[in-house]
Amino acid sequence: MTTILSRRSKFVGTAIQEEEGLAEELSRNGKTIIKLNRGDPAAYFPTPSYIIEPYIKALQARKTSYSRAQGIPELQMAVSERYKRRYGINVNGDNVIVTSGLAEAISFINGAVVNAGEYAILFRPYYVQYLSALKTNGGLPVFADYQEKANWSVDVDALEKAIKLAKKRHACIKYLLITNPNNPTGTVLSRKTLEEIARVANKNNIFLISDEIYDEIVFGGASFTSLSQVAGGQPYAVLNGASKTFDATGFRLGYVIIPGRDRGSVDLRKKLVDYARVRLSANTPAEYAFAVALRNEREHSKAIKNMVSKIERIVDTAMKMLAKNPYLETVRPNSAFYIFPRIRLDLLDLRDDSEFVEKLLREKYVQTTRGSGFGAPSHFRIVALAPKDVTEEAIRRINDFCDAHAK
Amino acid sequence: MTTILSRRSKFVGTAIQEEEGLAEELSRNGKTIIKLNRGDPAAYFPTPSYIIEPYIKALQARKTSYSRAQGIPELQMAVSERYKRRYGINVNGDNVIVTSGLAEAISFINGAVVNAGEYAILFRPYYVQYLSALKTNGGLPVFADYQEKANWSVDVDALEKAIKLAKKRHACIKYLLITNPNNPTGTVLSRKTLEEIARVANKNNIFLISDEIYDEIVFGGASFTSLSQVAGGQPYAVLNGASKTFDATGFRLGYVIIPGRDRGSVDLRKKLVDYARVRLSANTPAEYAFAVALRNEREHSKAIKNMVSKIERIVDTAMKMLAKNPYLETVRPNSAFYIFPRIRLDLLDLRDDSEFVEKLLREKYVQTTRGSGFGAPSHFRIVALAPKDVTEEAIRRINDFCDAHAK
Repeated sequence: MTTILSRRSKFVGTAIQEEEGLAEELSRNGKTIIKLNRGDPAAYFPTPSYIIEPYIKALQARKTSYSRAQGIPELQMAVSERYKRRYGINVNGDNVIVTSGLAEAISFINGAVVNAGEYAILFRPYYVQYLSALKTNGGLPVFADYQEKANWSVDVDALEKAIKLAKKRHACIKYLLITNPNNPTGTVLSRKTLEEIARVANKNNIFLISDEIYDEIVFGGASFTSLSQVAGGQPYAVLNGASKTFDATGFRLGYVIIPGRDRGSVDLRKKLVDYARVRLSANTPAEYAFAVALRNEREHSKAIKNMVSKIERIVDTAMKMLAKNPYLETVRPNSAFYIFPRIRLDLLDLRDDSEFVEKLLREKYVQTTRGSGFGAPSHFRIVALAPKDVTEEAIRRINDFCDAHAK
Repeated sequence: MTTILSRRSKFVGTAIQEEEGLAEELSRNGKTIIKLNRGDPAAYFPTPSYIIEPYIKALQARKTSYSRAQGIPELQMAVSERYKRRYGINVNGDNVIVTSGLAEAISFINGAVVNAGEYAILFRPYYVQYLSALKTNGGLPVFADYQEKANWSVDVDALEKAIKLAKKRHACIKYLLITNPNNPTGTVLSRKTLEEIARVANKNNIFLISDEIYDEIVFGGASFTSLSQVAGGQPYAVLNGASKTFDATGFRLGYVIIPGRDRGSVDLRKKLVDYARVRLSANTPAEYAFAVALRNEREHSKAIKNMVSKIERIVDTAMKMLAKNPYLETVRPNSAFYIFPRIRLDLLDLRDDSEFVEKLLREKYVQTTRGSGFGAPSHFRIVALAPKDVTEEAIRRINDFCDAHAK
């Protein structure tokens, strides 16, 4: 054989960690890297006790065998209650499928629905894994971009045109995916926009997927609507998990909700249980911990309020300093913990966002992610989670770096 | 669209849990099911303290952020030390890739290497996921059967013939996979057989994969050889993890070792890191726990000795009772915790192993797995982990069931 690797495997990879080798090398040479590349709140905000304590209890009680493949019933019910309480919608426990992180859910869904040559609608910029999972399964993207100049909102007319064009080419569109709040832009879609997206998907009979992993990390003034609140009887899936809003990235717990009674929803739900069974179960004690934490609304709401207000201050600090940088143009994020500046490459002696990110790491020891990895060239992503002084130091270095590379 | 599901998804599923719906229904109706279908030691033997305590410590120390995608260096090193200590071989920490259970490793490897229309050599009976993962990626099996009449050993001449035949058809054979100790047969390959398999693979330039997850669960008299001890400079991967020998199934921790310096090994290792990065990391506190436990040879060797001797007694009990059943023919297992009887369908009023397993559950409330799910029709798999009295009761019911269905 010429190569051991499959053709599909070339689509597997992530821009978020592609500088990891260089960063480890620089570390070994005594450099201290400021890592602003991974959206990992638990690296900065200690995971709160109300989810750690039940985890420890589950371990002490030796809840350490395989659990139920699709999730323990306690966790399915706790998720169901959350959606009732928070969004006023009814979801059966059976309609919740627990996964080893949201990444596993994305991988299962793409494997379960995409045939080679079929399409999915992705908005650019997208989270890196979406395109990788789609293409790995032979799928092709129809891109419908977020409008940077209008705070990264969705132009619904442009979306409709893209669908019409794809249909003219007899493309089979398997799903339309949104990330709301968005990674990497850190912006929330308005309720009206969501309603229009749902209407368009409905009219065209397209399965809707909404990744809402940052649904509780929304800053003052902005307001979040879940797809589950506007989807009217149409088939859809909502993705969420423990990683971000429960500050527990290392637990690896995600979930998929598919509430529909239509044929597509029923089939997909059943098939995702098959996928779950093949890999046996998610981490068992973590499932018990998450079930308890989801029901501890009092402690959770204290913790999340505290974390969000701190994140908002970090974002403010960074934004204030970035505003003074004439080489970057940045839409103010109102959610999550990402900042996604546009690089004025016309004013710099740098070729593209890849060179920007690599040289920023080599010269200033600040690790970020190139925007082209999210389908948005000439941008780069900053994770705004590090303490104020570290973030200040990082942005100072970014500003110095731009100055040094001015044409 | 006619169906939301992809064509590949029809290969996703596992015989081991296909009766789960029926079992849950019977439970709801007040029946007590004896579940002998999941190979889950932690459901019967409490996970030992030497791996629980460091897990709790990691949680208390808030080691709960994403970890390093391919595994924390401490765990990579602990695995490397285990192979030096146990098998006398040198494996760099970098050659170890940590996965969320061995199931994830199987899924990654098949995705990384198999193109549609390419082949892999599997021995029948195989663990259910192998064929599922191969076919899901468009791959096709070349079967080379274990010889039931010779204690499920390998006929190396037959293997060579199968390879020759496949090559004549210009088939591209991507890997040859063995499970040793075997699931579902519970038998170990001799060192001589392993050496011959390695020789054949080498001669034909075929990548070798050995799933050795049961490597420490071997009964008195039998002896286990790791592929790593006989592979002479040829590209290979060994799969293992915490689930069985560390009695920690619910932690979801597996690992792949690929020690080769050849091009194929280097490429595959690198690509598996890409796969790992896309899903961010395995469960972080569990990784710290496993790293500590792997180095605690004193406590581990006590615990595993104790567990293996208990499992051997359960197997003995079951075998003694099965020997009296004229409708079953059972090769005595010498490892793992599976018993895989052949069903004398010629003497029973049952059509096949599927009907046998379903009716056994419906009529006697004993849940087992049909052999056809492992590529061996007319067999069924019993998990020998339940306490002596439960196992006795289960085998009594199995024997009664056969008597009731005698022609």
